[in-house]
Amino acid sequence: MSYRLYYWPEIQGRGEFVRLALEDAGAAYTDVARRPGGVAAMMRLMHRRAQHRPPFAPPFLVAGRATLAQTAEILLFLGPRLGLAPRAEADRLWVHQLQLTIADWLVEVHDVHHPIGSGLYYEEQKREARRRAADFLAARLPKYLDYFEAILRRNTGGHLLGGRACYADLSLFQMVCGLRYAFPRAMAKRERRAPLLRALHERVAARPRLAAYLASDRRIAFNRQGIFRHYPELDSRKNKS
Amino acid sequence: MSYRLYYWPEIQGRGEFVRLALEDAGAAYTDVARRPGGVAAMMRLMHRRAQHRPPFAPPFLVAGRATLAQTAEILLFLGPRLGLAPRAEADRLWVHQLQLTIADWLVEVHDVHHPIGSGLYYEEQKREARRRAADFLAARLPKYLDYFEAILRRNTGGHLLGGRACYADLSLFQMVCGLRYAFPRAMAKRERRAPLLRALHERVAARPRLAAYLASDRRIAFNRQGIFRHYPELDSRKNKS
Repeated sequence: MSYRLYYWPEIQGRGEFVRLALEDAGAAYTDVARRPGGVAAMMRLMHRRAQHRPPFAPPFLVAGRATLAQTAEILLFLGPRLGLAPRAEADRLWVHQLQLTIADWLVEVHDVHHPIGSGLYYEEQKREARRRAADFLAARLPKYLDYFEAILRRNTGGHLLGGRACYADLSLFQMVCGLRYAFPRAMAKRERRAPLLRALHERVAARPRLAAYLASDRRIAFNRQGIFRHYPELDSRKNKS
Repeated sequence: MSYRLYYWPEIQGRGEFVRLALEDAGAAYTDVARRPGGVAAMMRLMHRRAQHRPPFAPPFLVAGRATLAQTAEILLFLGPRLGLAPRAEADRLWVHQLQLTIADWLVEVHDVHHPIGSGLYYEEQKREARRRAADFLAARLPKYLDYFEAILRRNTGGHLLGGRACYADLSLFQMVCGLRYAFPRAMAKRERRAPLLRALHERVAARPRLAAYLASDRRIAFNRQGIFRHYPELDSRKNKS
């Protein structure tokens, strides 16, 4: 099976969670929108009137006759096919549940720099972003980090579900990467209390196919168009609401 | 199978999407936190250190030995068991995908009145809420309404997936209820362009078990503690950012 992934070509964004799973599994896939004419093809597919099951937004994945959208659903679908999900239904639901919590977390990360509207520029909502960043760093970031650290503590084996990595481990790795880029000061401080999460990050980064991917030019660099954005004024330790 | 639902007892919130499915199916369930001592029981279950798979937040559902969290996942699990999901895997994934888009929409509805932080009072973020409301009503509400209207147009049969209701139809009904409560002016105007969605709302409301539930005191009234909140200043037609 060869997959076709559709996502914005210049950012990691939500597509990256899918890319990491495909790359880690060594799956054959085309990152359609990064090819010439690919963005236009993506827009056509999304807005085709004959499309009975249109995606609401990228990323979406075409796998044979199926078109899947929503990052967590794409991973729910891909997980067992890529060997990145457990077999039992209860375990699969647990991993999916974790992925949905990561998805919620990601929305909050995005909304730090876009608290008013995703269609406006950051510069148009800078003042509000500072307040939201203060709240995020003080209340939400620790809550999510503590949650995943507690799960790693209670499920020995170095991964979210024991000894084998699943797609949610890769996604959690990506959260750590992105948060370190966006909030280097806050993360340096907060991560001290999350040693198992730091170890998970290292373990995932060392997976051979993933390490090769991360070193390749297929891995888009973090930047200020993406979901994780570094604005020093939002990462300040003195940022108070 | 008797289910135990855990959710905040004084609001519809995310729990309501689960309640609607359970009620429509006539399933036996206990709304645990609405009983004496229920909130304390919910908190204990959530923070128990021996809990290997703790929910991040309510709602969660205990079904036999399984504990499910995240609204969309609970419905993914319940759907086939309650006769509210199609049989084929592709169809189930499609319904789940729609549910995930509804979940995204719901976060945006919440963030209209809480754009800075969910731990702060509305009164502490009123100014920002006005700006976010303007953006939501101008850009996001029409986008979501148009999306679901288009799907209803392309899939004849009066429901999201043809002739039979699935849990996502019930959730879409709930979105319309909540949006009408929160933004009566904006919805009165916007709904004119969504006749199939209006018809779906009526069709779901007329389902016998659901109609009985909606008329009962089990249906908590909308209020200003919930996700859908009515603040006239956020619904103004003159609200500009």
